[in-house]
Amino acid sequence: MPAQDQMKIGLFLMPFGHHAGGWRHPDAEPDNGPELAKYVRWVKTAERGRFDTIFLADTPALFHHGTETARNRPGGAGFEPITLLSALAAVTENIGLIATGSTTYDEPYNLARRFASLDHLSNGRAGWNVVTSWVAAAAQNFGLEAHPDHGARYRRALEFFDVVTGLWDSWEDDAFLRDKASAVYFDPSKLHQLNHVGEHFRVRGPLNIPRPVQGHPVIVQAGASDTGRDAGAQIADLIFVASPDLEDAQGFYADVKARAAGFGRNPDLIKILPGVSPVIGRTQAEAEAKLAQLHALVPEPVALNALSERIGFDLSGYDPDGPLPEMDETNGGKSRQKLLAAIARKDNLTIRQLARTVVSTRGFQSVVGTPETVADSLERWFKEGAADGFNIMPPTMPGGLDDFVDHVVPLLQERGLFRTEYEGRTLRENLGLPRPANRFAEARAGQAGATAPDRQPSKADA
Amino acid sequence: MPAQDQMKIGLFLMPFGHHAGGWRHPDAEPDNGPELAKYVRWVKTAERGRFDTIFLADTPALFHHGTETARNRPGGAGFEPITLLSALAAVTENIGLIATGSTTYDEPYNLARRFASLDHLSNGRAGWNVVTSWVAAAAQNFGLEAHPDHGARYRRALEFFDVVTGLWDSWEDDAFLRDKASAVYFDPSKLHQLNHVGEHFRVRGPLNIPRPVQGHPVIVQAGASDTGRDAGAQIADLIFVASPDLEDAQGFYADVKARAAGFGRNPDLIKILPGVSPVIGRTQAEAEAKLAQLHALVPEPVALNALSERIGFDLSGYDPDGPLPEMDETNGGKSRQKLLAAIARKDNLTIRQLARTVVSTRGFQSVVGTPETVADSLERWFKEGAADGFNIMPPTMPGGLDDFVDHVVPLLQERGLFRTEYEGRTLRENLGLPRPANRFAEARAGQAGATAPDRQPSKADA
Repeated sequence: MPAQDQMKIGLFLMPFGHHAGGWRHPDAEPDNGPELAKYVRWVKTAERGRFDTIFLADTPALFHHGTETARNRPGGAGFEPITLLSALAAVTENIGLIATGSTTYDEPYNLARRFASLDHLSNGRAGWNVVTSWVAAAAQNFGLEAHPDHGARYRRALEFFDVVTGLWDSWEDDAFLRDKASAVYFDPSKLHQLNHVGEHFRVRGPLNIPRPVQGHPVIVQAGASDTGRDAGAQIADLIFVASPDLEDAQGFYADVKARAAGFGRNPDLIKILPGVSPVIGRTQAEAEAKLAQLHALVPEPVALNALSERIGFDLSGYDPDGPLPEMDETNGGKSRQKLLAAIARKDNLTIRQLARTVVSTRGFQSVVGTPETVADSLERWFKEGAADGFNIMPPTMPGGLDDFVDHVVPLLQERGLFRTEYEGRTLRENLGLPRPANRFAEARAGQAGATAPDRQPSKADA
Repeated sequence: MPAQDQMKIGLFLMPFGHHAGGWRHPDAEPDNGPELAKYVRWVKTAERGRFDTIFLADTPALFHHGTETARNRPGGAGFEPITLLSALAAVTENIGLIATGSTTYDEPYNLARRFASLDHLSNGRAGWNVVTSWVAAAAQNFGLEAHPDHGARYRRALEFFDVVTGLWDSWEDDAFLRDKASAVYFDPSKLHQLNHVGEHFRVRGPLNIPRPVQGHPVIVQAGASDTGRDAGAQIADLIFVASPDLEDAQGFYADVKARAAGFGRNPDLIKILPGVSPVIGRTQAEAEAKLAQLHALVPEPVALNALSERIGFDLSGYDPDGPLPEMDETNGGKSRQKLLAAIARKDNLTIRQLARTVVSTRGFQSVVGTPETVADSLERWFKEGAADGFNIMPPTMPGGLDDFVDHVVPLLQERGLFRTEYEGRTLRENLGLPRPANRFAEARAGQAGATAPDRQPSKADA
């Protein structure tokens, strides 16, 4: 069992680091395109640092190729997450493997199979980051004229989730007898057909893979809009969030835990991990110089364009030295638009200044300083009700990750804030999360007078 | 370059071997469900045997769970192929990795990404077995009332293929400059938007992963109906086929090579690999005893049911000691139905006798004997215009594979019929197949007066 007073740490893995200037940094590894060996080194570093997880963001589109500054940025052309994590599963032992999977642009049967398969390949280390996909361009890769609206995407997402978890429960844990002598391979009474019929999906099942090692892979959510928070509070085991400062993070933390309680869930079983980008130096001055160097590596038009893209509003007609204009509400990432506007307002930033923030951390928390400064900041957030842990966003790779693992992790361990050895075998065990009951076995137990489940019964149980 | 007078050898990998009695055989590995370590051992054996490929069949449904005898069979509940092959890519060096991917129950953008990703993960060893899915039950996992009819599935398949290959060409091979000094990551003139609009799909692109290492992963086809043969002749690099005897195999071989020539392709660049199930003993008697032992491990109702399933017609009302009745044409695997009916007719088999064939090899060639007998048979097929190589279907695992690698491969190598070392780095190189040109680069070269491509220009080029 993990200690309750220890933080969870994930690696939010981007091949060039999170700073838009990372790919040009002298410490960056040579970039020869998608290359497994590089990822193997990185994930082994994270595992040496006893990280809970690595996490891969994703969107099924090349999302900024149409812009004038696209040529100046590396983003969006790399490995598909589930294939990459499957490969990494074969060469790691303990670290959790979280892939983003879209509920808008995939089929629940196919997605359920792939995550179940990753969970078996990794002996119980898979996680699914449930997203509705914020990049509107994806629609046109899937035969749609337009990206479905935000509310519609979330309705579909919750039904999609219900189908996927139902499919994962197709086989009870003890369905397979594999008795050579009697020629009985499985017990048909422990195989369940989902027969889901809903607004968006009709899926019969059963799934053609045994129940995942973890029962269900760990469910991750990162939506921070009102709808997104409700979704996370209902379904997530782990929540990733962009909070630029302690106060914002405390507000989000309290709100989501309260919503979870409102949905009848135990708030302690939802782990909230804000992203943080640590820029680490031996001295404060060295860290600040490193950040300045990274800033200087991003051409200004690239920074301005990245802001327009992230904020979901074309700012190219506005004075970069003026304030943010009034903007139409985006149909992409609503919470990110609000967050960036709030940062600009709070610190009275011009468009140009806000663009710097975007290329640096995209609105996530930034900590610039010595390993002690970084550890102090994480400790404060963790102890003051802002975080159950952190998703680490190295500004450069591999340097930013090495710095954190070699210099910050030991400090957190010395302070008793982070594990020195993995506690369990599966990701759920390391996170201190229970293994979900099988909805079909549970329904049968319920008929026999057992207690109610932690999770809400789904439509398919009715 | 591979020698032209050497055969290609693949492993058609099923976790319990291809004989329906394999899972109960004393030599079978303990079956603890989907377990990566077991597959790693098997694929390393195949790589030690210098096999060209491993191949995973697939269907997105649990296809015989509804039958009375389902409990007596292990099929259909295991790893999803692309995730498994991605994991195996990380622990192998040379062997090709072929996954089945459905054109009926997937999205071309998602499938194109995953195969491109597998190709990068494996440094150019991916192959895509293009199938329309023969199991009607799959439809109900994807919101459809009924499985689309055979002709409609193939029309969709060819358009799906055109979209996928077009997406693979999104980036030209030299699109990425990655010039840190000038901050230019790629050349936008070498990035192409597909803008496909067809009967079944509207897909804009571009794909968000660089062009696969092989240009296109190796294309595999296994449809043997008239429509299926045309599809293979048009698009395949590698063709898998079930031929029960030499004459049948020669007919198929000549027919498909002629069709390929008719489509303007070089027939030598399409490799035809019939499946073969070798049951190997130190003596003929030992091999025959092994097969008899396997037969005895399949309960008769299981065998009869497996026949109904494969032949696409419910035979349960008919006398098992009588002949096959007249059957309605299936909407599943048409060529397999015809093949099994022809086997029954030719050898005057009863339903019960044909069921034995189905549980043993499902209609594929069976060779029972010493390593010399097996090598002689393969040599004859290879030299007499029936095969460019073979897809090996061990009756049991790992014993059936070990027998072939340890005792038959050395004979083939001694006779100069099979490689002793891999010739190339990629699967295409080992198969002696060219790397396909990029359709967009080719179109530009065409405008400049270059020669015509080997492959037909697709609609998207127009």
